Amino acid sequence: MAGRGELSPERIVRLEEDAVVVLDQRRLPEEDVELRLESAAAVAEAIRALAIRGAPAIGVAAAYGYALAGERGEDPDAAFEVLANARPTAVNLRWALDEMRQDPSRERAVAIHEAEVARCREMAAHAAGLISPGSRVYTHCNTGVLATGGYGTALGTVRTAWELGLVAQVWVGETRPLLQGARLTAWELEQVGIPFAIVADGAAASLMARGEVDCVLTGADRIAANGDTANKIGTYGLALAARHHGLPFYVVAPTSTLDPATASGAEIPIEERDPAEVSRSFPARNPAFDVTPAELISAIVTEAGIHRQPYAASLPERIHA
Amino acid sequence: MAGRGELSPERIVRLEEDAVVVLDQRRLPEEDVELRLESAAAVAEAIRALAIRGAPAIGVAAAYGYALAGERGEDPDAAFEVLANARPTAVNLRWALDEMRQDPSRERAVAIHEAEVARCREMAAHAAGLISPGSRVYTHCNTGVLATGGYGTALGTVRTAWELGLVAQVWVGETRPLLQGARLTAWELEQVGIPFAIVADGAAASLMARGEVDCVLTGADRIAANGDTANKIGTYGLALAARHHGLPFYVVAPTSTLDPATASGAEIPIEERDPAEVSRSFPARNPAFDVTPAELISAIVTEAGIHRQPYAASLPERIHA
Repeated sequence: MAGRGELSPERIVRLEEDAVVVLDQRRLPEEDVELRLESAAAVAEAIRALAIRGAPAIGVAAAYGYALAGERGEDPDAAFEVLANARPTAVNLRWALDEMRQDPSRERAVAIHEAEVARCREMAAHAAGLISPGSRVYTHCNTGVLATGGYGTALGTVRTAWELGLVAQVWVGETRPLLQGARLTAWELEQVGIPFAIVADGAAASLMARGEVDCVLTGADRIAANGDTANKIGTYGLALAARHHGLPFYVVAPTSTLDPATASGAEIPIEERDPAEVSRSFPARNPAFDVTPAELISAIVTEAGIHRQPYAASLPERIHA
Repeated sequence: MAGRGELSPERIVRLEEDAVVVLDQRRLPEEDVELRLESAAAVAEAIRALAIRGAPAIGVAAAYGYALAGERGEDPDAAFEVLANARPTAVNLRWALDEMRQDPSRERAVAIHEAEVARCREMAAHAAGLISPGSRVYTHCNTGVLATGGYGTALGTVRTAWELGLVAQVWVGETRPLLQGARLTAWELEQVGIPFAIVADGAAASLMARGEVDCVLTGADRIAANGDTANKIGTYGLALAARHHGLPFYVVAPTSTLDPATASGAEIPIEERDPAEVSRSFPARNPAFDVTPAELISAIVTEAGIHRQPYAASLPERIHA
């Protein structure tokens, strides 16, 4: 197992003198290995290969990669393109690069990172207000320190709500095919001592039917102008099951995940990843994300507060770093 | 990979002179290994450990185990108990043992096996009548030759419908935690040349939302008098998603899976298996089955025909071997 020390923002991703350094999330929780990425292309490849993942965290990594490219004298447009195209669904990547294009400095990238962590704490404080005492919270994928470069969105909310004495138990959907729940979320929860149990993704609906779930909390990779939300594959089925059982389904994400230029979920590009992530023996399909329609989302929580339907009116402006 | 020859009923389970012999399904598709089980207790352990699995197949294995126990001079009541209690959810186990108690002969066990295979072909012929031309069928777990000792229930239906030219594509839910879909159903479909793709269980709802699924076919482990159906964990979430998208959800099972003594799904015992099947590193919960309420099931198909709601009136009597 990798070390049990507190996961500081710098452990997830940082800019050193001549490299972006990331904790390789593919090898967690068994091994604690850092990767030194010495060009924009190397950062892009680490994002594509999921060494670093989570919409806010890949935005931060891209910002560092762009600053590094500038210091190395790489062509700025080429650096922008390779980083922006590393993965298609999360909009944070392009948002962070647009910010960096205004000011490609190392200090700017650090400020983006610090702002993302601060936003997490703000949105977690807002979202914790939605959690009833004694809640058994179901969550999916990893939306914690690892996914954000610090604190977390949905999992940050779990942590804040736990510290407020509101959380009785966390259900961690294992999140196939890459097991971000079973590997990463479980590891983070164990580190901070919050009681949890991993379940197969297919078990969620029956836990709800048995009355063992009080709410569902997830993050987001892109939120369209109307509130439709792209998130890790499996989120939509959870939202359908939550609705059937009358349970609240909350999305927690920074304003950097909002995409006002995308009208609805139908326009969000969904990444298809290598089928070998699902099966190495037989044919497979591997969509990495799905879209949860706004009408299934009880609230979207950002650092600006709690937003309710209709989201086209309630979602805030993006807040710049 | 295990051999690609036709999977005859005798390859799945048979009674030899002094042993029940089963194909070890835990090691498929990589390895083709037979287990020789020389007592009722050994057969029960193979059922408990999932060397042989699938509600009809474990009924057949129990019948052979009971016949073997009689020939070996084991105490019949002890053999009955150990076999009946090997797994709690599938009712076929107890049904087959009740049949065997009337006539504990080798010939009777063979007749039960042959009758189960014949029933599969009958129910598949009925259920194929529900499949529209060009269908993209979503299925879960393994309900084929391996699960039944021959031909299959939901997967037998896929095969019959394919032979009739009705099936365009099969979506195989991988079926965590034990991957019966990704390991066993995929292997069976490849052997018979039906086009398929494995998907993570969490991808089902989004495939439906994209319009890439025309119907869902599953088997059953126990069907209560009112039609509520226990089946592999994940089935209930599929049924909810199918309902939301207006897609038919069909259950295909022999009358040996009917349990008229159980009024509703609330009374069906749900097996909790070893959490280590889900995670060896962290706490986990591992319910092996869930219950799909009758109102979500478009039709239940048995060897007696196609049964519609209200199931309390339409489900047939159990048909004896």
